[in-house]
Amino acid sequence: MCGIFAYLNYLTPKSRLEVLDLLVTGLKRLEYRGYDSTGVAIDSPDSKNIVMVKRTGKVKVLEDAIKEHFSGGEYSEPVMTHIGIAHTRWATHGVPCERNSHPHRSDEGNGFVVVHNGIITNYNDVKTFLAKRGYEFESDTDTEVFAKLVHHLWKTHPTYSFRELVEQAILQVEGAFAIAVKSKHFPGECVASRRSSPLLVAIKTKSRLATDHIPILYGKDDKKQTSDQDTDSGKPQEIRPHGQTRELPVLPRSDSTSEFMPEEKEVEYFFASDASAVIEHTNRVIYLEDDDVAAVRDGTLSIHRLKKSLDDPHAREITTLKMEIQQIMKGNYDYFMQKEIFEQPDSVVNTMRGRVRFDGNAIVLGGIKDYIPEIKRCRRLMLIGCGTSYHSAVATRQLLEELTELPVIVELASDFLDRNTPIFRDDVCFFISQSGETADTLMALRYCKQRGALIVGITNTVGSSICRESHCGVHINAGPEIGVASTKAYTSQFISLVMFALVMSEDRLSLQQRRLEILQALSNLADQIRKVLKLDSKVQELAKDLYQHKSLLIMGRGYNFATCLEGALKVKELTYMHSEGIMAGELKHGPLALVDDSMPVLMIVLRDPVYVKCMNALQQVTSRKGCPVIICEEGDEETKAFSSRHLEIPRTVDCLQGILTVIPMQLLSYHIAVLRGCDVDCPRNLAKSVTVE
Amino acid sequence: MCGIFAYLNYLTPKSRLEVLDLLVTGLKRLEYRGYDSTGVAIDSPDSKNIVMVKRTGKVKVLEDAIKEHFSGGEYSEPVMTHIGIAHTRWATHGVPCERNSHPHRSDEGNGFVVVHNGIITNYNDVKTFLAKRGYEFESDTDTEVFAKLVHHLWKTHPTYSFRELVEQAILQVEGAFAIAVKSKHFPGECVASRRSSPLLVAIKTKSRLATDHIPILYGKDDKKQTSDQDTDSGKPQEIRPHGQTRELPVLPRSDSTSEFMPEEKEVEYFFASDASAVIEHTNRVIYLEDDDVAAVRDGTLSIHRLKKSLDDPHAREITTLKMEIQQIMKGNYDYFMQKEIFEQPDSVVNTMRGRVRFDGNAIVLGGIKDYIPEIKRCRRLMLIGCGTSYHSAVATRQLLEELTELPVIVELASDFLDRNTPIFRDDVCFFISQSGETADTLMALRYCKQRGALIVGITNTVGSSICRESHCGVHINAGPEIGVASTKAYTSQFISLVMFALVMSEDRLSLQQRRLEILQALSNLADQIRKVLKLDSKVQELAKDLYQHKSLLIMGRGYNFATCLEGALKVKELTYMHSEGIMAGELKHGPLALVDDSMPVLMIVLRDPVYVKCMNALQQVTSRKGCPVIICEEGDEETKAFSSRHLEIPRTVDCLQGILTVIPMQLLSYHIAVLRGCDVDCPRNLAKSVTVE
Repeated sequence: MCGIFAYLNYLTPKSRLEVLDLLVTGLKRLEYRGYDSTGVAIDSPDSKNIVMVKRTGKVKVLEDAIKEHFSGGEYSEPVMTHIGIAHTRWATHGVPCERNSHPHRSDEGNGFVVVHNGIITNYNDVKTFLAKRGYEFESDTDTEVFAKLVHHLWKTHPTYSFRELVEQAILQVEGAFAIAVKSKHFPGECVASRRSSPLLVAIKTKSRLATDHIPILYGKDDKKQTSDQDTDSGKPQEIRPHGQTRELPVLPRSDSTSEFMPEEKEVEYFFASDASAVIEHTNRVIYLEDDDVAAVRDGTLSIHRLKKSLDDPHAREITTLKMEIQQIMKGNYDYFMQKEIFEQPDSVVNTMRGRVRFDGNAIVLGGIKDYIPEIKRCRRLMLIGCGTSYHSAVATRQLLEELTELPVIVELASDFLDRNTPIFRDDVCFFISQSGETADTLMALRYCKQRGALIVGITNTVGSSICRESHCGVHINAGPEIGVASTKAYTSQFISLVMFALVMSEDRLSLQQRRLEILQALSNLADQIRKVLKLDSKVQELAKDLYQHKSLLIMGRGYNFATCLEGALKVKELTYMHSEGIMAGELKHGPLALVDDSMPVLMIVLRDPVYVKCMNALQQVTSRKGCPVIICEEGDEETKAFSSRHLEIPRTVDCLQGILTVIPMQLLSYHIAVLRGCDVDCPRNLAKSVTVE
Repeated sequence: MCGIFAYLNYLTPKSRLEVLDLLVTGLKRLEYRGYDSTGVAIDSPDSKNIVMVKRTGKVKVLEDAIKEHFSGGEYSEPVMTHIGIAHTRWATHGVPCERNSHPHRSDEGNGFVVVHNGIITNYNDVKTFLAKRGYEFESDTDTEVFAKLVHHLWKTHPTYSFRELVEQAILQVEGAFAIAVKSKHFPGECVASRRSSPLLVAIKTKSRLATDHIPILYGKDDKKQTSDQDTDSGKPQEIRPHGQTRELPVLPRSDSTSEFMPEEKEVEYFFASDASAVIEHTNRVIYLEDDDVAAVRDGTLSIHRLKKSLDDPHAREITTLKMEIQQIMKGNYDYFMQKEIFEQPDSVVNTMRGRVRFDGNAIVLGGIKDYIPEIKRCRRLMLIGCGTSYHSAVATRQLLEELTELPVIVELASDFLDRNTPIFRDDVCFFISQSGETADTLMALRYCKQRGALIVGITNTVGSSICRESHCGVHINAGPEIGVASTKAYTSQFISLVMFALVMSEDRLSLQQRRLEILQALSNLADQIRKVLKLDSKVQELAKDLYQHKSLLIMGRGYNFATCLEGALKVKELTYMHSEGIMAGELKHGPLALVDDSMPVLMIVLRDPVYVKCMNALQQVTSRKGCPVIICEEGDEETKAFSSRHLEIPRTVDCLQGILTVIPMQLLSYHIAVLRGCDVDCPRNLAKSVTVE
């Protein structure tokens, strides 16, 4: 999603120009996380104000702007202690533009400025709360509410430390975030925190570190807090959707005794979304955990948590990085694609975050909800895409048909255009594209729009052409996808379309049971994906069996046919092995002739409504001496008995099983590619976002 | 289509039981031509009447019935001279049942009985003519009108010979036919004729033949005929659709001087649809040509033609067969599939026969025309099939969309069922199946029928389950297809759907130009197919380049994408080589990674609306060192320049080009299969008609 970077020098003389240079370099390393807009905040030359520079576009644009505006002599004078924050944005809320760029500020005086990565899902509630208290908002972002909330707390709790202000603020926000905050009112201090989004602190000092662990400071329990003296008017109240209000737990100041301080006073701190941004400065980092609040004051770093649970550790370790920059960008993974495969437990949650309310069994798709009545009256739903995006449409077509009871047509964008397909004013057309810039899909969108259809965009990139030209849409929020072969975008597209189907059916009494079943399954999905990912080494073994073959047939039907197509595409893209997804129902009409004891076959046979038909196909294959690899449900001994090679995946509801079955295929294509010596992230002949026809 | 067989013994004593046995054996050899119903006609024991036995089903059923009913002693007594006719039916007009079984009779007294293979396209006009004169019809067939027409002529021209009666009758009928006629009034005589449908006469005699040529006897010219003494009332008049009536040219009796007579008097004659039925009796046969009339009277065979044109030969050669029975069934071809590929110039004409009127630019699909108004008011057209039949739907989808301006959805029957696809009362669903028995397609039909949709069958087999259970339909009339890999059925399905599209648009003024263009192209199609078939040896050379490869990618888009799918299926089925049809527009989204200098690629690049896009794809492939085989238009030097290997096909209208492009693919798969030593007609693991799910 976004990249955040902050740099604090304590008793280490640096000119503001040097600081800016450091910030820009840090952003460059994080640019893969988003490049819609960028921004920095530093102190003004008199240190009494905060100066911000923001630009739409890549870091290079910001760099040029800085060179142009900060050439003056006063910016070259060294300052002993200074804190600068920076951000590179991958737009989720609000189109990419300067107004929506980070840092966001609390007020016109730039009292507090914030950089944020993630999505604050209850930002509308917080916004309403703050608007009632006179705050005016200048951007469309979720982030701005955080800056203004801190400001509100500062005004109502004048005795609070910077760290306490941020701590109170994050108690009020829901969603995913990594934030770093700088304030005019607390010069030389920086506070940062995270939940679900990554954040680390890096330490650079000439001297030996006094410790290799930073103790964690825990807050007091709630009872004590309520006896605090805060006036009710000053206490922010969280507005819940159901109209309940809840008192804010407000913490007393903690008496921080265990803080980190290097033996020498001189020290530099870096806060960054990942290690790639800091490795050129230092190799000593602390990875923050969810709900950690890290604060630097007087050159001293402390890490705080509000509550201590039984198995919480006492300290955060200072890790010594042993990796190259390139590697760090990929975390512990060898390739971006691998990283993205393993990100899926998080990315699917991000797709649902703020949309699916599991307790109330409610789903709100903000970007589309005003259009639902119109969509319900349509003649038919058309899902249009290319490649993997097309497969996500194939994967969810049946559920859409079931829950909307409308005709649902899926189309390859190129073929749709070639055919000059008739389109009617009462059609609703979905355009699915990770980048939102796929040329064929975009042209199909324009073709349909011209004919008066309602246009719905399903993209991973806010502000993309498909986003801008749609009437409404769903952002899949999977986070930036670097690997050319799409993985997490597929599962997030899949879930986005499932959520749409659920929204369309919320008023249908007869479908409530089915909806509950699906919602239940969605809530378990992340854990089940984690379980599937544990098959990695087993899949790697399988890859060793397969990688020297010329061909691979992947067979399935029903909800899992899309997995066959998508799996085959992954294998094609990455391994250059001729792989084909085959509808198991069509076997007898031709493809069965390919099967013999030497043709590698993979079959997906799950306990869903087409189980018996799949077993027929499986028996046809085995009776032709085929020895298929079987993807089946955990503990399905009967099915497993048909082959010595099988991958067992957890059971979920039929219509979501495709998310769990595609992951072994992603892993398989990855491992075969590695074994064949292919460049996983840059497959030959292909590029990430196909912006030509 | 049907098989006809007649046996005449002259001065050769045979009991009626022996004759029946001969007839049944002959039918068994012809059974591949149809097995909907069977029938025989022989003389009654007193030789004063004709006895017929007919049964629904295969020849075996008839055989059993004969055994049961003709065990009596009077049937075992030898007769010196006798004529028996027999028929095995592949239903085209009228469902398979005893009433519609051949032989058909002229009157209750069985004055004339006829067996017929083919379709009399103007049978309705003839029927009207005869009905006015008091004839009552007992079957739904086209054949019955022929028997009654001969009877009418016999009554009005009492002086005519048997042969002359038949000659006059065939002058009145249009369409394709091979017929054999037996008459109570002309005992021991047989007359047979053909037009478009095959027919041969075989001769068995102990003595040496006096000649190896049978001279042809030509009739007098029309002028002389009009001076004939026939009364106007007795002259049948041909009723033309536009209301014109035309006088029948009635011939005088020819003074036959040159007839065939063996040196010895004893002789046996066989009339049969092909040589497989006679080879066990004799190897001396005469292949009749269109409009030949062969007659046997007093043991003497004569061949007659009404008119002589400049290059007509003087005689028909008596050929000595040198083949095995199995081979004969396949004609001069090594495999049924090969034969069927080469039958396509005829089979496409058979599909259009009686339906397309090129002079009036009119199309009538008898089996569907009453439903056209209802179809025009539908919500959408759904085309449902499996394998090759599905591809014919893909191939014509765009034209259907263009000419009907309705949403057109194509579905694989198995997937359609798996998805429980929503179906509405105002849907029109087409079910496409060569055999009419494909299990998935049939089940999809029942699913849709239950939901109130209008059901249209597109089959090659009258009386099949899909035929019977449809509301209306089109018989593709491609003739029986023996090869498991479908070839001529595909092109005939294709044309049937094109004809449907033309019918749907006949009232649209703005589409007249387009329709004319397509009709024009249809009229040239048979010749163009012949031209494409001449590529055979070039395709064989190409097969030699390709047959050792493991994979083959077939790329195209637009109207020719279906050819890619169908071509790939043929290669899969026959050669067990992993072949895949790839939408050229999707190349950049993955499949391009497969392309390098060693991957065999075939691309279809025609001068149609997607030419530029195809050229883009071609350049993408060549820039990755791919060296594709190109199927392009005759003389398209620019496109040819991109590869040293190309197949040039004639230009036709864009929407029919797929018929010409698929034929090289059929030939290619055939030749590769032969080179790889595969059994072309019985590919491993597959069967012809998939009657299981």
